[in-house]
Amino acid sequence: MVFTSVRTEGDGGYGETAGRLEELVKDVPGFLGMDSARTPGGLGITVGYFRDEDAIKEWRSDMEHRAAQKRGREEWYESYTLHIAKVERSHGFRK
Amino acid sequence: MVFTSVRTEGDGGYGETAGRLEELVKDVPGFLGMDSARTPGGLGITVGYFRDEDAIKEWRSDMEHRAAQKRGREEWYESYTLHIAKVERSHGFRK
Repeated sequence: MVFTSVRTEGDGGYGETAGRLEELVKDVPGFLGMDSARTPGGLGITVGYFRDEDAIKEWRSDMEHRAAQKRGREEWYESYTLHIAKVERSHGFRK
Repeated sequence: MVFTSVRTEGDGGYGETAGRLEELVKDVPGFLGMDSARTPGGLGITVGYFRDEDAIKEWRSDMEHRAAQKRGREEWYESYTLHIAKVERSHGFRK
């Protein structure tokens, strides 16, 4: 799950909600991890890793998450794109 | 293609090479677009969109890209992870 977004100006409770959701998603069975980066004043990208579609469905239907999505569209985001993608292969490097 | 990385300190030619590669990838047939974000001092995430495996293969075998990957491991990255994933569905929002 790749979520790419441009924020509106100001915080308006965004930081608190984002922190709360980061905790909440950890309770979803099949949630594997999350990475987030935001260029100041620019694009933000969050990548969430889930075991399968059921895990994504559970997260999508979480009531706090749904309320936050609504506020996101109304207040926090100028624009966003969400891609659901299936990981086919991976590799990593560490010094 | 989701590339998540932690940079070493300093630039050391990274910015120039990154800019050059951003131009170069546009010439790959089947390249669809790219998004990038980096939290200052923290994680960077680059998402590259390609039409199919052939397009990814072409980009992976580009000689300048390969040289940059080598320098990346030697100089620019503390760590990175690359996931190749197939987009299954997408949606977007714009104010």
